[in-house]
Order: sequence, then C-alpha cells, then structure tokens
Amino acid sequence: MKNSSFLITLLALALVFVTYKWVDSTSVPSVTTVEASSTTLEDIMTRTSVRSYSDRNVDSLTVDTLLRAAMAAPTAGNKQPWRFVVVNDTASLNYIASNFRSMKMAAEAKVAVVMCGDVTATFEGEGREYWVQDVSAATENLLLAAHTLGLGAVWCGIYPISERVSEFSALLKLPENILPMACVCIGYPAAESTPKDKWEPEYIRYNTWQ
Amino acid sequence: MKNSSFLITLLALALVFVTYKWVDSTSVPSVTTVEASSTTLEDIMTRTSVRSYSDRNVDSLTVDTLLRAAMAAPTAGNKQPWRFVVVNDTASLNYIASNFRSMKMAAEAKVAVVMCGDVTATFEGEGREYWVQDVSAATENLLLAAHTLGLGAVWCGIYPISERVSEFSALLKLPENILPMACVCIGYPAAESTPKDKWEPEYIRYNTWQ
Repeated sequence: MKNSSFLITLLALALVFVTYKWVDSTSVPSVTTVEASSTTLEDIMTRTSVRSYSDRNVDSLTVDTLLRAAMAAPTAGNKQPWRFVVVNDTASLNYIASNFRSMKMAAEAKVAVVMCGDVTATFEGEGREYWVQDVSAATENLLLAAHTLGLGAVWCGIYPISERVSEFSALLKLPENILPMACVCIGYPAAESTPKDKWEPEYIRYNTWQ
Repeated sequence: MKNSSFLITLLALALVFVTYKWVDSTSVPSVTTVEASSTTLEDIMTRTSVRSYSDRNVDSLTVDTLLRAAMAAPTAGNKQPWRFVVVNDTASLNYIASNFRSMKMAAEAKVAVVMCGDVTATFEGEGREYWVQDVSAATENLLLAAHTLGLGAVWCGIYPISERVSEFSALLKLPENILPMACVCIGYPAAESTPKDKWEPEYIRYNTWQ
C-alpha cells in the first residue's frame, strides 16, 4: 500500500510539473519574443470594421489610450502633423450620422475621433501631402488599439472629398490649416463580426513588376 | 496508512487542479480580453524606426507574414488597391541606398517592400486619392508585424515626391497605373532602439477646435 500511494503521489506531482512547464511556454510573453507576436498578429488579422454598437459607454481613459496609440505612429521627418478632434457630443454625432450616408453609425457610436492634419506642421512643396500618410498610420494604430481593447470602430473617409472636408471643417470649427481626413466611429460592438480574408498573392511581385 | 496516502493523493490532485486553473487564466488569451490588449498596445507603443540591421537573413515565410498583416488593413470601399514589390535583390537594394539620401539603410537591409497603389483599382474622381490612405494603413500594419516578429523596419517616403516616383517606377518596371508610395527597409536590428515619446495632449480638442 505504501508503494502504491507513493506512486500515485509521484504521478500527481509529475502532472503538476508538466502542467507548470506548459504554463511557462504559453503564458503572455514579453514583446520581443516570437510568442508575443501571435497576439499582435492576431489582433491585426482579426480587426474589422464595426458599424453597430451597444449602449456601453467609452470612458475617457480608454479614449486617451486610443490617442496614445495613434500618436505612436511614425511620421515623415518626425513632423507629427496629426491633430485630433474627439466628438462625444450627441448633437454632433447625430449631425454626422444624418448628413453623411456612409456615417450613419455615428448616431450609435459613443464617440468619434476626427483624424486631422495641420498642413503648416509638415513639409512644404511636394512633401506637404505626407500629412495624409502620417494621419493614416495614426488612424490604423487607433483602430488596432480599439480592437485589442474590445471596442469596435470604423474608418469613414473625409479627405480629399471637398464637400465632406468643408462640412466637417464647419461642424468642428477648424481653422484653415487643419484638414479633417477621417472620422473614426467608436463603441463597444453590438454583435460579433467576422473579419474579411483579403490575402491575395497576386498582388505581390518580386524585384520587378514585369 | 490508507488514510494518509489518500490525503496526500488528494492534496497532490488539488495542486494539479489549482495549477490548471492558473494556466487557464494566464495562457495567451483570446483577442477580445483585456489581457490580450496589453501586448498589442505594447507593440504599438514600442515600435520605432530601425535603420541598422544585423547579418541575419529574413526568410520568405516571415516576409509572407508581413504581407498578410499589410493586407489585413481596411481600405476605402474595400477596394484593396494595394500592390507590393518585394525587393531582395542585392543590386537593387544597393541602387536604392546609393540613389536616395534618406534610404542609405537599404544597403544593410535584407529585404525592402515597396508599398504601391493601383490607381485604376480604386474610386474615380476625388476619391482616387484614397489609395494613399489605404496603402498607408497597410504600411503601418506591416511595420507593427515586423516589430512584433523581432524585426526592425523603417518607412521611407516615395509618393508624392515626383522624382522618387519616377526613379522607383523605372527600377521596379512599374506600369503607369501602379504608383510606388513608400519603401519599407527590413532586417533584424543591429542594436536596441528607444522609441520616441510623441504623446502631446495639446494636439487633442473636444467637439470643436476653438
């Protein structure tokens, strides 16, 4: 009996050890290891446009986190020409929803961030338009941050559609040098969404196109 | 003796159970939980431009993963106008390095991805320029994927600088409808980099600018 109880205990302890080793290899790793990547890659691959939101509020700390993520994007010449107008006023969200067919979801959104660029804060001449790429990179960061925080968001285009640019400039009382590029509507998702599979090997060439 | 062996076995099994529950709460979580977010947010916040690379090669599966991440970005009207030229030919990388002052690191890079847009694959009229925002979002995804995989990368601007556009179009033998927007140089980092703190609360306004 002594022997069999010893064996059972040993077996149980072996199980504890194996489980412990398994924990070690599957627990959330630091950012520089290969394991860390899977979570970020998963977030990148599963992010999708979310256009319907629940009643749950989006608190200001969460909005700050999204903006911190946006401002971590790279910018041409490190000019950081991005500017942000956080819209949480119900009247403004309803105005956006009723004036732009592609932004109806703004009425349900708890908050929208209008991603802008200061055209006097970047290069002059041909490089002036780099602000669009800078603000776009910030927008993608913001969308990924929203997704990883359990929020749903959608990127609604404004610039360079001149009618949209004027209407948003008037609504947000923007000075002439601040151009609105996109309106990101944000809220907690009302339902689960399935991300699109957009992988297309034909879009890839090696060294030369033809 | 029977009783004590039973107790020891029970104790060991309880330990197994507790460890198992602990595994459950610390193992890599699904993308919608708060735990998952920290890794993605960390990657967003710690990504920085890396301009010096080690001799370590970048394998083709890794390049594919980067391109999958790029093609997971959103595009206006889901047009997916992005196109990619993967440059891993040493002569081409050296040509880029010696012809563009801001792209000297291409000589050290193991691979560069030239992020392009097909202007016939997007909207007509004012919406044509949306391709720049689409390709920029894809570029930011690619940079984040590189960072989380332990690679270093840097976004070098091409479009809309006309001289750079012509030179890259010639080098890559691009047809007229394919415009090169950015050249992302990629390799394993030669050294650790410190990310910039770009958080600036003054860039944020609420509901109206003034």
